[in-house]
Amino acid sequence: MRLLLIGGTGTIGAAVADAFTELGDEVVSASRSGDHSVDIVDRESIDRLFGAVGEIDAVVVAAGKVPSVALADATGEDFDAGFASKLGGQISVVLAALPRLADGGSITLTSGILAQHAVPGSVVTAAVNGALEGFVARAALDLPRGLRINAVSPTIVLEPGETSEAFRGFRSVTAPEVAQAYVRSAYGIETGQVFRVW
Amino acid sequence: MRLLLIGGTGTIGAAVADAFTELGDEVVSASRSGDHSVDIVDRESIDRLFGAVGEIDAVVVAAGKVPSVALADATGEDFDAGFASKLGGQISVVLAALPRLADGGSITLTSGILAQHAVPGSVVTAAVNGALEGFVARAALDLPRGLRINAVSPTIVLEPGETSEAFRGFRSVTAPEVAQAYVRSAYGIETGQVFRVW
Repeated sequence: MRLLLIGGTGTIGAAVADAFTELGDEVVSASRSGDHSVDIVDRESIDRLFGAVGEIDAVVVAAGKVPSVALADATGEDFDAGFASKLGGQISVVLAALPRLADGGSITLTSGILAQHAVPGSVVTAAVNGALEGFVARAALDLPRGLRINAVSPTIVLEPGETSEAFRGFRSVTAPEVAQAYVRSAYGIETGQVFRVW
Repeated sequence: MRLLLIGGTGTIGAAVADAFTELGDEVVSASRSGDHSVDIVDRESIDRLFGAVGEIDAVVVAAGKVPSVALADATGEDFDAGFASKLGGQISVVLAALPRLADGGSITLTSGILAQHAVPGSVVTAAVNGALEGFVARAALDLPRGLRINAVSPTIVLEPGETSEAFRGFRSVTAPEVAQAYVRSAYGIETGQVFRVW
């Protein structure tokens, strides 16, 4: 299949590119830098990207930033920033992808364990990921032409042997393990699901 | 207790005002019209409201609008509007309330059954309510001074005998039934919960 990968330079994105390439798929990799440039908070840049890449069978978004801040220190702007980037940015990609995906194509977004579990400073992320999971479940019911949509929700992603102070006691996974959930989403038949890699 | 009610002129808000008034509480009712004027998408108007009303023991928000639109017809602006109003607006009230609530005070927001269940045109609402439920669960862990936060999630609110075409087959509830969930939130000890009135 022909895959458009947004956020291909990140830890997860690079592993996603590797996983689909190993399967013989063509991966068109887009990020804020690089040949196919896109910033998911900029809807015009998303439209330009889709206009440039032609027909695709699958879209993966592994991009989006959310401020880490405790509620007592949070401002409205912190929430605005998270809503504009990881939430609104991924939804903007979906809206742009809908008319351009081949029949039966798929979209896979990125949520995360902080939708359900807590570390300090995760209140904006909890809202963003909660919205994404609600969106994916509902969007699946609205999709035409056999299109599908899912989200991957990873726990903390670490190299073997690496540790994270903020996520002490949490199971960690490696980026290649997370990448397989995107493969499952794109190759499978499921839709409206959140694939937890915990 | 002294309750600040935002959205007091709506169907649910009016029933909330009645329920707390019957218990002998002082209800300060704010809405876009009326003596205490507020628009939850306007953060300055929220700050002015809290500056004007003095110390309060509980805040209820029963306000916020979300566009009803199918995914194929939705624009980024539809999502922006829902995120700014029912989602961002309620969160702005929380941020403004935090330093002004009496010790042990409570905040109760409004989600809805469309967080988990679908009717046509509910994709923006699913995202908004999903975010609110994620936010409430996480915010509860961050609250100082014994403050609490919950959300009420009503199904369709109808008068006895009234029907709704969009919600055919769904159980309906009356506004006074929904109002009791806000009473339970403000008088109880629970926090980080979503009280479903389905």
